[in-house]
Amino acid sequence: MVRGVLLDLSGVLYVGGQPLAGALDALGRLRASGLATRFVTNTTRSTRDQILAQLTTMGFHVNADEIFTAPMAARAYLQARRLRPYLLVHPNLFPEFEDLEEDAPDAVLVGDAGEGFTYDDMNRAFRLLMDGAPLVAMARNRYFQETDGLSLDAGPFVAALEYAAGVEAVVTGKPAAAFFQAACASLRCAPTDTVMVGDDVDADVNGATAAGLRGVLVQTGKYRAGDEERLEGSEAMVLPDFAAVVDWLLEGANSDDRN
Amino acid sequence: MVRGVLLDLSGVLYVGGQPLAGALDALGRLRASGLATRFVTNTTRSTRDQILAQLTTMGFHVNADEIFTAPMAARAYLQARRLRPYLLVHPNLFPEFEDLEEDAPDAVLVGDAGEGFTYDDMNRAFRLLMDGAPLVAMARNRYFQETDGLSLDAGPFVAALEYAAGVEAVVTGKPAAAFFQAACASLRCAPTDTVMVGDDVDADVNGATAAGLRGVLVQTGKYRAGDEERLEGSEAMVLPDFAAVVDWLLEGANSDDRN
Repeated sequence: MVRGVLLDLSGVLYVGGQPLAGALDALGRLRASGLATRFVTNTTRSTRDQILAQLTTMGFHVNADEIFTAPMAARAYLQARRLRPYLLVHPNLFPEFEDLEEDAPDAVLVGDAGEGFTYDDMNRAFRLLMDGAPLVAMARNRYFQETDGLSLDAGPFVAALEYAAGVEAVVTGKPAAAFFQAACASLRCAPTDTVMVGDDVDADVNGATAAGLRGVLVQTGKYRAGDEERLEGSEAMVLPDFAAVVDWLLEGANSDDRN
Repeated sequence: MVRGVLLDLSGVLYVGGQPLAGALDALGRLRASGLATRFVTNTTRSTRDQILAQLTTMGFHVNADEIFTAPMAARAYLQARRLRPYLLVHPNLFPEFEDLEEDAPDAVLVGDAGEGFTYDDMNRAFRLLMDGAPLVAMARNRYFQETDGLSLDAGPFVAALEYAAGVEAVVTGKPAAAFFQAACASLRCAPTDTVMVGDDVDADVNGATAAGLRGVLVQTGKYRAGDEERLEGSEAMVLPDFAAVVDWLLEGANSDDRN
């Protein structure tokens, strides 16, 4: 029984600031159906308010408290442990962390810093790790879809720091089970009653499967032919796009033999 | 029977342009002994001529044809396969590759580009890899010792690109067996008669062990307490510094029961 739906944003609803074909209408139909919905993103170049503004500009109707972001999860993780992070993050995100103590940092926080991934800043983070600071990664996505092609996300730079210092990062966004569970809890849905829809095999679909949700891979955004071969578990589905996912949710999900 | 000696440079003979204590004298004694010697470096911020000039300025007596560098091995690898590399390397190295075709690149070559590791250049390399270009790494060392601390070497950025594109790099410098074998061949020594001395557990010592040489880890340069726990095989030795290595080579290596 599907009772809740988690939706990835970039690559599912839009790419490069443009809604994908049929996505505006599909979200409207999903909303009208009454299925509880949350938006869960590993985008780490924008705060929740910035994401909300982008969605609204594109014509998607979303409320702030329906959006779960990897940076918000990182902030909660750092606060709970009273860590003072060195921020290797995009300048857009500085407001998200401005009230955390950052002098004499004792942790390294990595997001998709984009052009902020300079050698000098990577080296500063590396030296903190060698002194024992924990490595906190908002996400470890490999790449994302931009209008002109695929671009490096935070994951490769997390992998670089892990390799250099011989450490393993704590990930606060997808595919962390705690991240999916928090979103499910806010829907008052069990993970087993919740579907996660995304274009990233690792962070979205395999992560959801591992957390007990049902994952659906859409063939838009960063999807590339052959990605389905990397799906783990037998429950994950592959559908062409978000509109097809909504068709399935509204017509077939609660009647077909797979549920 | 030790007949040949391979020496790493930075961290063994010098750090940050300054000879290590006793290193000038120790190299003189090694030379006077008649033991055949080669200098094998994964430094990828300098050409062989630049390295030779640095060694000479510091007072080390070395001939150009005794120096084996990872960039020289990369050049040979690319030429043999008629590859046109996109150069993610330090500007100092451009002369080493200036006669290779670089238009419409069909390979990615990574060295320690230092501040040249910008997001945009990493992203360009990534996109070539996603189009099928092979990833050639001069080295995959984690870090090196600078005067003010440890700094990121090429390895972390190689790991980043491997993670992003889901590929594995071909390494042309240490610890590639072919690199050690070429240096041994120029000495007319079998690997089993050759000692490799370095401060990097992975590239120098474990790499040499895997190629059939005897590895010696010195506790200078990038060495950190506990590195010996990562040594592989039972033959590797640990000695305090290069001067102690020369003492052992001249006094004990060919008489003690380990040979």
